[in-house]
Amino acid sequence: MDLEDFLIEKAKIFDRALNGNLTPREPKIFYEALRWIPISGGKRLRPIIAMLACEAVGGVPEKTIPLGISLEYMHNSTLIHDDIIDKDEWRRGLESTHRKFGIPLAILAGDALIGETFRMLSYMAPPELESATYKEIIRSIADAAKSFYEGEAMDIKFVERFDITIPEYMVMIQKKTGQLYLIAGRCGALIGKGTPKQVANLTEYGNLFGFMFQIKDDLLNILTDQSALGKQEVGSDIKSGKRTMMVVHALQNIDKKNKEIMMKIVGNEKATQNDVLNVIDIFRETGSIDFAQNKLEEFRNRSKELLDVLDDSDSKRYLSDLADYSVTRPY
Amino acid sequence: MDLEDFLIEKAKIFDRALNGNLTPREPKIFYEALRWIPISGGKRLRPIIAMLACEAVGGVPEKTIPLGISLEYMHNSTLIHDDIIDKDEWRRGLESTHRKFGIPLAILAGDALIGETFRMLSYMAPPELESATYKEIIRSIADAAKSFYEGEAMDIKFVERFDITIPEYMVMIQKKTGQLYLIAGRCGALIGKGTPKQVANLTEYGNLFGFMFQIKDDLLNILTDQSALGKQEVGSDIKSGKRTMMVVHALQNIDKKNKEIMMKIVGNEKATQNDVLNVIDIFRETGSIDFAQNKLEEFRNRSKELLDVLDDSDSKRYLSDLADYSVTRPY
Repeated sequence: MDLEDFLIEKAKIFDRALNGNLTPREPKIFYEALRWIPISGGKRLRPIIAMLACEAVGGVPEKTIPLGISLEYMHNSTLIHDDIIDKDEWRRGLESTHRKFGIPLAILAGDALIGETFRMLSYMAPPELESATYKEIIRSIADAAKSFYEGEAMDIKFVERFDITIPEYMVMIQKKTGQLYLIAGRCGALIGKGTPKQVANLTEYGNLFGFMFQIKDDLLNILTDQSALGKQEVGSDIKSGKRTMMVVHALQNIDKKNKEIMMKIVGNEKATQNDVLNVIDIFRETGSIDFAQNKLEEFRNRSKELLDVLDDSDSKRYLSDLADYSVTRPY
Repeated sequence: MDLEDFLIEKAKIFDRALNGNLTPREPKIFYEALRWIPISGGKRLRPIIAMLACEAVGGVPEKTIPLGISLEYMHNSTLIHDDIIDKDEWRRGLESTHRKFGIPLAILAGDALIGETFRMLSYMAPPELESATYKEIIRSIADAAKSFYEGEAMDIKFVERFDITIPEYMVMIQKKTGQLYLIAGRCGALIGKGTPKQVANLTEYGNLFGFMFQIKDDLLNILTDQSALGKQEVGSDIKSGKRTMMVVHALQNIDKKNKEIMMKIVGNEKATQNDVLNVIDIFRETGSIDFAQNKLEEFRNRSKELLDVLDDSDSKRYLSDLADYSVTRPY
C-alpha cells in the first residue's frame, strides 16, 4: 500500500474512536463544543507514528491505540485553546471552537480534552504495561503538555520582539510542535519494548518530524494558495505576526530599510495582499526561504538515518516515507 | 488540637508542597502566572478531607499527599479558568490571573495545572497502590474534571434563565463543587483501604461537604461584609447574576411584581448597592434564606450520620467538626 492510502486507512481508526468516545451527552452544547474540532478530521499523524514506532521495534501496534487517542485529545485541546489565544477564526475549514461556541465553552472544551487524555492513558496502567513504562508514559505526556504551554508562552512573547535568534526559535517550536511527535515516537517504541537505542532514535525521529511538519506548514502558508487548508489567503501568517523560521531568519539577515518595511507589515492585520507579497519577496532576497528548505532537507536526512537501527519492515518503510512526505506534501 | 489549629497546620503541608513543586523556571512569566493563585493560600480543604478520610478508615494519612496535591492543582486550574469565564477580577485578595497576566497566559496556566494534576497522580501508580485502586482514582479525577466542566457549562446557560428549579440547581453545584470534595472523601477512603460501606459513606460525606461549602459561601456573600474575602461589597453575586440557591428559590416563590424587580437587578453590573439590598430583602420575604439555612442543617446532620460507620478516632472527630465548620464558619 502506498503511504497516502496507508495514512487514510489508519486515520479512520482514530476518527472512529474519537467519534465514538466523544458522543454527545448533556449539557448538549458543551459536548458539541468538545467534539467540534476533534471529529472534524485532521491527519492523525501522532497516533500513526506511535503505531509505526511500536510495530517497527517488533511490538503489537494495536497496543498503542489508547496512547494514540490520548495524543489526539491533547493535540486537539491545544488547537482549541491556541485558536482563542491567537484569535484564529478558522480551523480545518470550519469556524474555530470559540468563534462558534464562545470563549467560555471553548476554554471548557479544551480543558475537558486534557482530562480525557489522562483518562484514556489509565487504560494502559499496570498490568497492561509494566509499571515503569506506564509511569514514564504518563510523565512524558504531562511533560509534553507543560512544554507545549511553555512554548506557547514563549511564542506570545516573541510576537513583541524583532530580535529572536534561530536557536531561540528552535527551542520554541521544539516545545510547541516537536514534543507531541517526540512522545509519539518514544512511547510507541517503549510500548513495543524496543532496545534503548531504538527508543532513543525513534524519540529523535519524532522530534525531527515535528520540526519538519512545522517548517513545511509555514512554507506552505507563504508559497501556496491556502484555500485547500480552510485558511485565509497566501501569507496569513505574516499578517498575524507569527514568528516562523523565515521571519526569524530574515530579521537576522536584513538591511535597515527592509527591516523597517517588515516591522510595519509583520503582525499588521490591516496589511494588504501587496504588503504581504513584499515581505515574501524580502524572504527570497535574504535567502530565508532557501534557509528553511535546506533545514528541511537536513532534518529529512537525519531522521531517515535514525531508522538504521530498525530491522527492515513495512513499518520502517512507512516511517521513512513519512519523513519524505513531511517535506514534499502539497498541503 | 481544635479544628481551626488543625486546619492551619495541615494546610501548611500543601502550601509547602505547592510552593516547592511550582518553582519558577523559564519562561519566567509563564511560571509566575502558573504559581500566582495556587501559592496564594486557600484552605486546602480537599487534601485535608482526603487525609482525614484515609486515616479514619485506618490507613496511613501521608499516603494521600500526592492525591491531595493533585486535588489542589485541579481546583486551582478551575479557579483560574473560571475567573476568565466569569470575568472575575479578584481572587483571594489578589488580582485574578487573567487580570494580572492577560487571558492567554491564564488559559495556559490553567491548562498546565491540569497536566500537573495527572503527573502527580502517577506517583501513586502500581506498585504504590493496587492497579484497580489506582485506575479508579485516575478515572474518578478525570470524571470529576469533566463533571466540573459540565457544571460550568450548565452555569453559563443558567445565567440566561429565570426558571431554574432547585433540582436542576443541585445537579449543577454537585458537578461544579461537590465532585472534587466527593473525590477527596472517596479516594482518601480507597487509599486507606476502607470497607465498601466506609468508602460509600465517605464519598457521600465529601459530596455533602461540597454542597454545604457552596451554599454557605453564597449566604456569606449576601449576609457579610466581604472585605475579609478580598471580594467586593455585600451581594456581589447578585450583580454578577450568579445562580445561587437563594436566587433559584426566590424566583420559584415570588409574585409577579417582585420577579420583575429581581430580573432587572440580578445580573446587572450597574445595579446600585440599594438595588442589591432590595433583592436581599426579597430573599427574606420569599423565605429563600431560611430555605438555604435549613438545607445546610439537613446536610450537616446527614453528613455527620454517615460517619457512624467509622470507629472513634481523632480523624472521625475532625470530620464531624468540619461538617459543623462548613455551616458555622464566619467567612
